Amino acid sequence: MGEALNGLKRSIMCGELREEHIGKKVTVMGWVQRRRNLGGLEFVDLRDRTGVLQIVFGDKINEEAFEKAGKLRAEFCIAVTGEIVKRESVNENMPTGMVELKGESLKIFSEAEPSPIDIKENSETAENLRIKYRYLDLRRADMQKIFMIRNKTTKSIRDYLQQQGFLDIETPMLTKSTPEGARDYLVPSRNYPGMFYALPQSPQLFKQLLMVSGFDKYFQIVKCFRDEDLRANRQPEFTQVDMEMSFIEQEDIIALNEGLIAHVFKEVAGVDVKLPIKRMTFREAEEKYGSDKPDLRFGMEITNLTDSVKGSEFKVFKDAVEIGGSVRALCLKGGASMGRKDIDRLGEFVKTYKAKGLAWIQLKEDGIKSPIAKFLSEEEMNSIISTMSAENGDLILIVADKNSVVFQSLGALRLDLAKKFDLIKDKNEFNFTWITEFPLFEYSEEEGRYMACHHPFTAPMDEDLDFIESDPGNVRSKAYDLVLNGEELGGGSIRIHDMELQQRMFKALGFSEEDAWKKFGFLLQAFKFGPPPHGGLAFGLDRMIMFLAGTDNIKDVIAFPKNQNAFCYLTEAPNIVDEKQLGELGIKVLPKESN
Amino acid sequence: MGEALNGLKRSIMCGELREEHIGKKVTVMGWVQRRRNLGGLEFVDLRDRTGVLQIVFGDKINEEAFEKAGKLRAEFCIAVTGEIVKRESVNENMPTGMVELKGESLKIFSEAEPSPIDIKENSETAENLRIKYRYLDLRRADMQKIFMIRNKTTKSIRDYLQQQGFLDIETPMLTKSTPEGARDYLVPSRNYPGMFYALPQSPQLFKQLLMVSGFDKYFQIVKCFRDEDLRANRQPEFTQVDMEMSFIEQEDIIALNEGLIAHVFKEVAGVDVKLPIKRMTFREAEEKYGSDKPDLRFGMEITNLTDSVKGSEFKVFKDAVEIGGSVRALCLKGGASMGRKDIDRLGEFVKTYKAKGLAWIQLKEDGIKSPIAKFLSEEEMNSIISTMSAENGDLILIVADKNSVVFQSLGALRLDLAKKFDLIKDKNEFNFTWITEFPLFEYSEEEGRYMACHHPFTAPMDEDLDFIESDPGNVRSKAYDLVLNGEELGGGSIRIHDMELQQRMFKALGFSEEDAWKKFGFLLQAFKFGPPPHGGLAFGLDRMIMFLAGTDNIKDVIAFPKNQNAFCYLTEAPNIVDEKQLGELGIKVLPKESN
Repeated sequence: MGEALNGLKRSIMCGELREEHIGKKVTVMGWVQRRRNLGGLEFVDLRDRTGVLQIVFGDKINEEAFEKAGKLRAEFCIAVTGEIVKRESVNENMPTGMVELKGESLKIFSEAEPSPIDIKENSETAENLRIKYRYLDLRRADMQKIFMIRNKTTKSIRDYLQQQGFLDIETPMLTKSTPEGARDYLVPSRNYPGMFYALPQSPQLFKQLLMVSGFDKYFQIVKCFRDEDLRANRQPEFTQVDMEMSFIEQEDIIALNEGLIAHVFKEVAGVDVKLPIKRMTFREAEEKYGSDKPDLRFGMEITNLTDSVKGSEFKVFKDAVEIGGSVRALCLKGGASMGRKDIDRLGEFVKTYKAKGLAWIQLKEDGIKSPIAKFLSEEEMNSIISTMSAENGDLILIVADKNSVVFQSLGALRLDLAKKFDLIKDKNEFNFTWITEFPLFEYSEEEGRYMACHHPFTAPMDEDLDFIESDPGNVRSKAYDLVLNGEELGGGSIRIHDMELQQRMFKALGFSEEDAWKKFGFLLQAFKFGPPPHGGLAFGLDRMIMFLAGTDNIKDVIAFPKNQNAFCYLTEAPNIVDEKQLGELGIKVLPKESN
Repeated sequence: MGEALNGLKRSIMCGELREEHIGKKVTVMGWVQRRRNLGGLEFVDLRDRTGVLQIVFGDKINEEAFEKAGKLRAEFCIAVTGEIVKRESVNENMPTGMVELKGESLKIFSEAEPSPIDIKENSETAENLRIKYRYLDLRRADMQKIFMIRNKTTKSIRDYLQQQGFLDIETPMLTKSTPEGARDYLVPSRNYPGMFYALPQSPQLFKQLLMVSGFDKYFQIVKCFRDEDLRANRQPEFTQVDMEMSFIEQEDIIALNEGLIAHVFKEVAGVDVKLPIKRMTFREAEEKYGSDKPDLRFGMEITNLTDSVKGSEFKVFKDAVEIGGSVRALCLKGGASMGRKDIDRLGEFVKTYKAKGLAWIQLKEDGIKSPIAKFLSEEEMNSIISTMSAENGDLILIVADKNSVVFQSLGALRLDLAKKFDLIKDKNEFNFTWITEFPLFEYSEEEGRYMACHHPFTAPMDEDLDFIESDPGNVRSKAYDLVLNGEELGGGSIRIHDMELQQRMFKALGFSEEDAWKKFGFLLQAFKFGPPPHGGLAFGLDRMIMFLAGTDNIKDVIAFPKNQNAFCYLTEAPNIVDEKQLGELGIKVLPKESN
């Protein structure tokens, strides 16, 4: 049976021991990293959350402890008491490598079977096994470090916001199903059989109500839920740093959040964020980078060739211009040496973004090589090359299509090429940008109506107010995203606080008054009672931690993550429950075949 | 249409203005509390989250602003700019009562319909209306104060625990249905139709896994869920301050939490908690106060009369002793003057706790009055009176029954009498006690087996280890509760970290090995890999805030609470959802009649 503490106290952590402790008697507790027997000595590396310490047991030090130490295997949980001595052979790779502990007494709290996974940094163990044995996986020093970073980050965020007068207020988890946005997770009600709560996708409506209540500055670090088909780096439950402010405008929210981000990145990762953070309009981001979250750590901007090929007889270009699209291109420096097969692969790549094809021009030492050269006049070819500022050795890659396809495919191609040709030179760079002036609406072919890009409470830009009815597609909004290295770190908007404007917005979205009330009744009701001007922002905490911890896998920053099917290998949730319990909820599982 | 800020900035909060600001030009923003017209002047009380400021508009100050102010009604949201001047008639009831603002310009951000509820402290508005219009209810200064206290409390808790090396780690919300304890809220899975997640009743298993992972000190302020029939002061979702530590014993957890509580109560409420907090065993609490959460702000302890009536021929007493029960009593000082009807009511009261009756003895000036006098010898009567230390004018109230009934009924009667006779003298007292040595098991008549009092991972006391099989009912555990003024503030235990002991525990609970693995498999699996000695505690945050804010209604400390049926008057959740969505989840609502 495992031993008990019986009053024994840990006096210091393994990783803290240094030369200054030589001669001191200490008690350390933790897990056996490994044991080696060297003749009359047993060397044990003991690990706790601060680091690893070498312990030596010997029959001359203490015979009983020495005998007992011989039984130790990896991951046994133990306590050792003894004197810190100078180490004979210093290990400079360990912070504690100057000293070791002479093991005078040993307690074995519990034994361990051989670990089914590697407990070491950057282990190659399969992810599902790592999650199944998460409690072992989390013993890895690199994993422990991530959760210390996460702890420090949330503390840093809270300290900053509370210092600025923000109140941490909790909003409900069991709430009403929201009609717009992603699919809700539902929770059947027992008191009202046949009815359901929804888990929140965000506290959006509640934080706006808190502004109507006069709380002025709200924040919360809060779990949110989306029942989506999970893309990589998405989790069904995720954590949001959510905030809202009253009596402010876009500039105030941007300024506050620049202060917050600079504070957090400095405190947690020692990164100096240069303020003010640069800004770019949505339109510029789209035209130059084919994305509303451009990665600005490298150049290779998209260039518009529509003017250069205006009047071209080449059908592909002509068709694109005729349907209101455009002809745009990237110039890959030094890409002229790329082989035909590799270029064909790029063509296949853009097709996955619905581009019909990829035209290309190689500027080789011995002249231009291009399958479209024969369709272009010399003047057109020269115009293309000069517009692209292309030089000998470069490769021009052209997409001609409707604009949305041109932007998406070239945006994706730009990122793909950056990876392939290692265009991001400074891997430690944190390149922040605000993207502003997002469109208010986007047209949904599927729904046959305009949809809110952000959400239906986002305020239009003052300059565009008059076009809500006449030209909704071109109305810009007071919405903003903070982008870091090509990822959206957070986003928000100024909200509409005027009922009349809100009604116009709903009308543009094709909601009848009845619809609007059914969907957002309680917020609309609240807006009858003196709502203040307000706006907010939410950061994805998990993604922020990924940046701060330097990992590109979201599962690394969540203690108990789920897989892409929202399944938990550790607990095996979801699982089957009692018929009786379902009966109480007034629901029934459908037979398999009807699913 | 409502006006916009257009660059106008709030320069100071209403409640901050003092004489030192006289002569300064300021801009304040908030809500109209009331407006009074006094001839050529309009007086407006403006409210923000810091307080109320008087503003005066006049045609001589600024005619345009004066005209506009005439349109203001209660709860309009506005901004006013002007000079702070000394007030002619000082209002000493307001912190800002020495000054007023000369309104030189006025913006009306939004108008307000007449409020359907009173926006004032201690309003008598019906609770369901208050919750339906929560955004207005939360404008009350007393309600705003509660959420500022809540914000300060969670900050204070986090600061203290992080200072002590605790890591804030999030555990999952979508997890596995737990088989013991209260009813789970379920969440149907779309990826696995017919299967369900459960929302956590507490992060118990995960925090133990985090200890197995070597995180040493974990905490989290986290939402938990219980689908119970709600008693007063319960909510289906509630917030827990949850913590767990490794390599510690009960004394360490108690010491840490005494430090925490003293820090929080001092910082938030200015209360000095005297340390160390006194302690009482479960047994003493039960015997003296008939409760495991005794209210120690008054005396009137339960006294055991079993010895005094040993050998009595009075059938009620005799029967109680024969079934292994007891005869116990309270002595209400000065209660001899109570009328027969009132005493009968006390008898009815104890019957709701399953007592068969309440015997009583009045010590009046003119002698003893008691319906049971005729059944007792003079010696027995004298022994009762002297054991109770009863004096002239007192009332002795006796219950004879099996112990559980005696304790419950007298415990409840004690509290009832304290309320009726106002026995708690110091209403501002914070009387803390640790209750220790809880029983490990309690026998469930319903299940026909022993159940874990706390949970099946609670460690037995070392002294009682040998009796787990032979006398489970008398095994005490390393569980502890912190009680404040008769309410459980929090509780926890040292956990079993030894597999062999855990198996004995499951056996005593009547779980087969297969059952145990099915229910707690992943924790048992984890315990094969070197679990450390560990233990923890959880506080109910909502209840803590109730104490700190001085309210006895849990709905006051939750921004958006639900009613006793777990219904939200504000959002009208739960509600009916799409058939299509249910189909995706592989479930179906049962027809009404089958519910």
